[in-house]
Amino acid sequence: MPPPPTAALSSSSSSSLCLFPFSSYSSPKKTQLGFCPSFPFTRLTNVTPTRRLMTCSAVSIEKETLISHRPHSFLRETDGLDDGSVRSRFQRMIMEVQDSVCGALEAVDGAGKFKEDAWTRPGGGGGISRVLQDGDVFEKAGVNISVVYGVMPPEAYRAAKANVTDQKPGPVPFFAAGISSVLHPKNPFAPTLHFNYRYFETDAPKDAPGAPRQWWFGGGTDLTPSYIFEEDVKHFHSIQKKACDKFDPSFYPRFKKWCDDYFYIKHRDERRGLGGIFFDDLNDNDQEMLLSFATECANSVVPAYVPIVEKRKNTPFTESHKAWQQLRRGRYIEFNLVYDRGTTFGLKTGGRIESILVSLPLTARWEYDHKPEEGSEEWKLLDACMNPKEWI
Amino acid sequence: MPPPPTAALSSSSSSSLCLFPFSSYSSPKKTQLGFCPSFPFTRLTNVTPTRRLMTCSAVSIEKETLISHRPHSFLRETDGLDDGSVRSRFQRMIMEVQDSVCGALEAVDGAGKFKEDAWTRPGGGGGISRVLQDGDVFEKAGVNISVVYGVMPPEAYRAAKANVTDQKPGPVPFFAAGISSVLHPKNPFAPTLHFNYRYFETDAPKDAPGAPRQWWFGGGTDLTPSYIFEEDVKHFHSIQKKACDKFDPSFYPRFKKWCDDYFYIKHRDERRGLGGIFFDDLNDNDQEMLLSFATECANSVVPAYVPIVEKRKNTPFTESHKAWQQLRRGRYIEFNLVYDRGTTFGLKTGGRIESILVSLPLTARWEYDHKPEEGSEEWKLLDACMNPKEWI
Repeated sequence: MPPPPTAALSSSSSSSLCLFPFSSYSSPKKTQLGFCPSFPFTRLTNVTPTRRLMTCSAVSIEKETLISHRPHSFLRETDGLDDGSVRSRFQRMIMEVQDSVCGALEAVDGAGKFKEDAWTRPGGGGGISRVLQDGDVFEKAGVNISVVYGVMPPEAYRAAKANVTDQKPGPVPFFAAGISSVLHPKNPFAPTLHFNYRYFETDAPKDAPGAPRQWWFGGGTDLTPSYIFEEDVKHFHSIQKKACDKFDPSFYPRFKKWCDDYFYIKHRDERRGLGGIFFDDLNDNDQEMLLSFATECANSVVPAYVPIVEKRKNTPFTESHKAWQQLRRGRYIEFNLVYDRGTTFGLKTGGRIESILVSLPLTARWEYDHKPEEGSEEWKLLDACMNPKEWI
Repeated sequence: MPPPPTAALSSSSSSSLCLFPFSSYSSPKKTQLGFCPSFPFTRLTNVTPTRRLMTCSAVSIEKETLISHRPHSFLRETDGLDDGSVRSRFQRMIMEVQDSVCGALEAVDGAGKFKEDAWTRPGGGGGISRVLQDGDVFEKAGVNISVVYGVMPPEAYRAAKANVTDQKPGPVPFFAAGISSVLHPKNPFAPTLHFNYRYFETDAPKDAPGAPRQWWFGGGTDLTPSYIFEEDVKHFHSIQKKACDKFDPSFYPRFKKWCDDYFYIKHRDERRGLGGIFFDDLNDNDQEMLLSFATECANSVVPAYVPIVEKRKNTPFTESHKAWQQLRRGRYIEFNLVYDRGTTFGLKTGGRIESILVSLPLTARWEYDHKPEEGSEEWKLLDACMNPKEWI
C-alpha cells in the first residue's frame, strides 16, 4: 500500500477536466505561481517524493486573461507559422474535436446550449471551456481544450530522457495541449462519458547539443453507466478496439487494462465505471502514427457514445433508478476528488476551480452502508466495477 | 503555497467521523495493515515528508470484530481496572456523550432512530458507530466513538517529546480514544454541526527510564449553516466561549481562530462554515483541567446546537433555498474529501469506509460557475465563509 503523501503522484496521469492543472488559472490575486503539471511527472519514476516536490514547485507559467472571442490559435507566433508541426496539428485536431463533440451533444440534447469561456496568456497558450448545464438530456457536460507553454526544472527533463546524462542543468521549456471532457446525462440508463487526449513536448535543450526534443501522447475514453446494457458496453468497447486495431493489435488489450487500473477507487475496491481505454507517456511508436492514433481516438468519441445516449435518453425510470444513479455519481466524485491526478493537482496548485470541478455531476448522493440486493441490476453494475470484464 | 504531496499532512488534525483512520477497519481480506493515525503526526513538525512516510507506514493495529452488543468498556483489562485513570475517565465521558447526544437528536427528530454498529479488537480497543438516516428532521446524523491501542515508531515518539533525546529507539505503544460526529438536517435553515473530542497517550518507554508518559487532547465543535441567522450563530459561539472561559480566557479567541484556519477550503478561498472552536496537541495545561475542559466542550454540544435545530426544523423553504443548501453540501464534501486529515488518511489507509464517509451529506449539488447575487442571503453566507467574523 503506497504511503498517503505520494498517492497523488503515484497514479499514472490526469483524467479530469483540468487537463493541465495550471491551464486555466485565473485568480486575480496572484500573478505567478509554482505549478505542478501532470505531464512531466508521469515520467519521473526514479525520483524520491522529496525530489518530486522540488521539481514540482519550480514549474511556472504566466497568468491568463479572459477574452471575448476564441482565437484561431493559442500557439506562439513562431509555432503558429509552422502549420506542419505536431503541436500545431494537435492543436487543430483538439479544436475540431471540441467543435464536433459539442455540436453532436447539442443535437442530442435538443435544448441545452454550450456556454463558452476563453482565455489566453501573454506569452502564448490559452484555453476554451465549454459547459452545457441542465439541458433536456444532459445534467452537465463540459468540453475543455487548453494549450500551455511552461518551464520545467532540469531534473524533470533529465528524468524524462534518461539516456542523456551529460547535459548541464537548466530550465527546460515545454509545450502541452489537450482536450478533456466529462458528460453526465440525466437519465439513469444513459451512461456518463469521460475522454481526454493530450500531447506534450519539451524544447530541445540549448545547453546540450544533440540532445533530442522529447514528446509523448496520453489520453483515453471511458464509460460510466449506472445500469449495464451489454449491447451498449459492447458497442462502446468495440469502437475503442476498432480505433486501436487500426494502429496496433496490442493497443486495445493494453490500454483497456490500463484504464481498469487507473479508474480504481481504492477505498471502495471498485472502478468508477466500465472502463474503455487509457494510455500515457506514449512515445515508443512513430510520432506521426501516434498523432494519427490520438486523432482517431478523439474522433471516435461521438460514434462510441452518441448512439448510446440517443437510445437511452428517453427510457422511463423510477425514483429508485434515479437514486442509484445518484449513488454512482457519489462514487464519481470520490474518484475525482480523492484520486484523479489532474483534479487533485489542480485543487492544490490553484487552478481555475470552475474548470476543474465541472467534471463533477450536478447532483449526487451518499447513503450509509448501502448494499444492492444480490442479483439485482444495481448489484450487477457493482460487480462489474469490482471485477472488470472483457466486453468484446 | 505548500507543495501538493505534503498537503494531507500539513493541516493540524483530523475532524472527520474517522477519528482515527484505523479505528474501524474491517476488510475481510487483510489481517493487519500499516496504518497512519492522525494523532502521532500532528506533532511531527520538524520531520521531512520522506521521514513521515516511513514512520507512517510502521504504525499497526489489530483487525476488529463486529459484535452484537456494545460492551461496558473497550479498555484492556489492566486499564479497565483502574477506574481513575484519564484514559478510563475519557472513555466513560465519550460513551456518555454519545448516549446523550443521540438521545437529544432522536427527540428533536421525532421519527428517526439511530442504527448501531459495534466492534472490538482482541488485544483491546473497539468502537461504536451510530447513524440516523432519513429521519423527519435529519438527513443524516452520525455519532461515532472509538478506542485504539496501537504501536508507533520511535521517530514519532521522539518528535512528540522533543525534550527527551537520549532514549533508545524502540516501538512506542499508544492509546487513543475519541468521539466524532456530523449532523446534517434536512431544512436548509437548520445548520450542519460537526464535533470531535479525542485523547491520546503514549506508554512510558521501557527502554528510557525516567522518560515521561506523553498525552494530549484535541477536538472542537463547528457550525455550518446555509443561511445566517445571527441570533443562532451568536448563540452557538456564546456557548463555545462559555465552555472555554470556565477554564482559560485565552481559549476561546485562540481556538476560534484555529477553527477558522483549519476548516479552510483552499481552492475556494472560503471556510466550509461559520466556525466554532478547534484545538489540537493540547498538553500545556494541567491534565485534569484539560480533561474537564474536553468534557465541558462535549457536554456543550446539545445546548449549543439542539435549540437552533428546534427553532429552524419546520421553517418553510423554497426549492431555491434547498438548492443553495445542496451547493453548500457540495463544499462540505470538497473539504472532507480533499482536506480533512482524518478522512484523507482513512481513505488512503483502508479504514472502514462507511464509518469514514458517514460524514458526507445524503445529497449534494455542483453547478458550474454559480455566483450568488451580491447582497442576497446566499451572498452573505458566502461572504462570512470567506471573511471570518467575530460573532460575539
